[in-house]
Amino acid sequence: MERLPGFRDFYPEPLPQKDIWSADVRNHIFDTWRNTARRYGFREYDGPPLEPLELFTTKSGDEIVGQLYNFTDKGDRAVALRPEMTPTLARMVAAHERNYRKPIKWFSIPQLFRYERQQKGRLREHFQLNADIFGETDPAADAELMALLIDSLRALKLTADDFVIRLSSRNAWHEFFKRGMRNAECGTEKEYEFYTIIDKLEREDPSQSDAKLKALGFSLDEVKKFIAAATPTPELETILKNLDARGLGDFVKIDYNVIRGLAYYTGPVFEAFDKKGELRAIAGGGRYDHLVKLVSGGKVDLPGLGFGMGDVVLTELLKARGLVPAFDAPTDVFCLIEDESLRAASLKLIQDLRAAGLSVEYPFVPAKPDRQFKRAVELGATRTLRLERSANGDVQVRQKNLKTREEKVVPYTNAASLL
Amino acid sequence: MERLPGFRDFYPEPLPQKDIWSADVRNHIFDTWRNTARRYGFREYDGPPLEPLELFTTKSGDEIVGQLYNFTDKGDRAVALRPEMTPTLARMVAAHERNYRKPIKWFSIPQLFRYERQQKGRLREHFQLNADIFGETDPAADAELMALLIDSLRALKLTADDFVIRLSSRNAWHEFFKRGMRNAECGTEKEYEFYTIIDKLEREDPSQSDAKLKALGFSLDEVKKFIAAATPTPELETILKNLDARGLGDFVKIDYNVIRGLAYYTGPVFEAFDKKGELRAIAGGGRYDHLVKLVSGGKVDLPGLGFGMGDVVLTELLKARGLVPAFDAPTDVFCLIEDESLRAASLKLIQDLRAAGLSVEYPFVPAKPDRQFKRAVELGATRTLRLERSANGDVQVRQKNLKTREEKVVPYTNAASLL
Repeated sequence: MERLPGFRDFYPEPLPQKDIWSADVRNHIFDTWRNTARRYGFREYDGPPLEPLELFTTKSGDEIVGQLYNFTDKGDRAVALRPEMTPTLARMVAAHERNYRKPIKWFSIPQLFRYERQQKGRLREHFQLNADIFGETDPAADAELMALLIDSLRALKLTADDFVIRLSSRNAWHEFFKRGMRNAECGTEKEYEFYTIIDKLEREDPSQSDAKLKALGFSLDEVKKFIAAATPTPELETILKNLDARGLGDFVKIDYNVIRGLAYYTGPVFEAFDKKGELRAIAGGGRYDHLVKLVSGGKVDLPGLGFGMGDVVLTELLKARGLVPAFDAPTDVFCLIEDESLRAASLKLIQDLRAAGLSVEYPFVPAKPDRQFKRAVELGATRTLRLERSANGDVQVRQKNLKTREEKVVPYTNAASLL
Repeated sequence: MERLPGFRDFYPEPLPQKDIWSADVRNHIFDTWRNTARRYGFREYDGPPLEPLELFTTKSGDEIVGQLYNFTDKGDRAVALRPEMTPTLARMVAAHERNYRKPIKWFSIPQLFRYERQQKGRLREHFQLNADIFGETDPAADAELMALLIDSLRALKLTADDFVIRLSSRNAWHEFFKRGMRNAECGTEKEYEFYTIIDKLEREDPSQSDAKLKALGFSLDEVKKFIAAATPTPELETILKNLDARGLGDFVKIDYNVIRGLAYYTGPVFEAFDKKGELRAIAGGGRYDHLVKLVSGGKVDLPGLGFGMGDVVLTELLKARGLVPAFDAPTDVFCLIEDESLRAASLKLIQDLRAAGLSVEYPFVPAKPDRQFKRAVELGATRTLRLERSANGDVQVRQKNLKTREEKVVPYTNAASLL
């Protein structure tokens, strides 16, 4: 029986085949994300992977349903596997924000689901680091969030030669749109239609983009000029200055090609890309100052901003740059059991060593000494321990360091002397 | 907008209300599970939360569908959110077992889903530590698995006064059934029907159980006598001896009331309960030597055994025993910014301290000194740092230890001197 297409199994290393996903690499990425977020003072939360369908359509419109794993549950509720974390987070924050000091800085590592057409590297699930800040309108919060994004990648040993953050602004595009439309169509569906055209600019045929823009009263030419000028808005200038002060200026450039597809962004928006331009976006995010209000039905109004960074593109990038660390799940001790009359005593020793925090392995059943030793080597054990009887019948322990091959025999009293 | 009934949000501490689930407590439990499993040499894996429906019906029969979150996806596949991890694991092991040395010792912490009627403490999702061993028929493997179960609970500071493992055997019940049926019905549906009656014995009205047993040619009386005698089979004796050798004998007792509901168990089975008997089972598992063969359509035949331990009952037990640790997410440094002309220099300091591994917080925007200090205290910061100008204009740093209230001022060169 096969797993579903677009879903992944994660196996422990050493992996049987190169195309298999590694649970150890995944843990390495998750651990790095967690550690970085904590250094930045972000606290972890989580929500349900299954949510009312309405939570996602409220935010993104009914079109999103076509890309969802949605169904009707046995209680006749329209439900969906979460395609993104932000609506759940906005719901959670709206419910209890009064009890948390502002700014709220939270992160999570949810698994997300989308029913997409199968393509190389396009899976139907992935994990994402989501980091968000609530309760602060100042661009200092945007800079803090981007610094976290940069450091999450740097902690994985990626450098300014490997990735860049393209920083843009919905406000800048809003001003551009306003000038073109002479205010008449601001805040209408036309404005979001315009953003959608900009969002697709780099992927779509120019003549097609131009036609669509002309239908709205713009031209591809003036749009291209606006992008080429890349004049930072005051808020973007503040962000750049802030990141410069931290020594992170090299990781960011203004790029108005970026606008982000989702409707709810309101201010600065950004995407992280590999510098060779071979992969899809590594991460993306921005400000969404009205989302909590929307999700809470107007009850709570709290500015917010956040980003998501997926594990699939990131893993591809780490592999391409040779930055996936070597497999390392140390067995501290392999306990050889060659004298079955000492099995009970060996089990006690194993128990005590594990209780002291060591990772310990041993043979379940009698096995030839050379097979046991081979197994210890396979497991990468630091040392072997073997209980044995001395000439006068006392129990002693033979200890061998598998790195130095140094061996010594000492009288055995208890585990404490072997730590 | 509300979350779905039976699903949980996990909030960061300090929690706004007592009845809210804590992401920090969940992390504490997950970390403890992971550390214990690793000390025992178990390696982590994971699989998809969504699987073909058939994977679960193959193992548990079509009746299970009534309790599943199942639906038809957009590619017309019958799919289900996993209600348990074992079928996924058996599928994964069957696919690649040849490339892993035996015994295979793996663990995972999946979220599992069941559409159940809502009751107190009965949620529709929970997380479970799943630990399994493949490739070893000797009861030494059963003992190793039970030792891991015991130590996972002990690592959470639960003792032999808090919980006990009730150990039983499908083999013992099979022999009992065989004697009663004179071999005629062994291996038929009647045998599993018999197990189902035994499984419900402690929850069902005795006269009802007796009637059902009589229909199969047994009586409640002889069943009760068999349970009361609690004569260990040779395999159970081996397990008890093994656990005794480890000093874990106090945590186990033979109890033939336990038989486990699922059809696929074949040998020793066990369940962990709180000793006060106030809660549902904390964990349960056993041997399933034919499951890999079943799931792989006969291609791979590998003995297996495993257990699952859920987070919901466990969290209830830890709370009841006062064993939930106090919230502790240390902020190492709160950087006070009172002189805005030093904000850029402060940002650089913050960046460098975080790069050195410290958790650092600071005010995004100008704020009154006493408000900043209050925030540092709220965050439980170990110390505050403040860049300031000395009388002659040099930048110096004022450092205050918030535990000892000790304060000192030193010339500021860089972050390294402040680690």
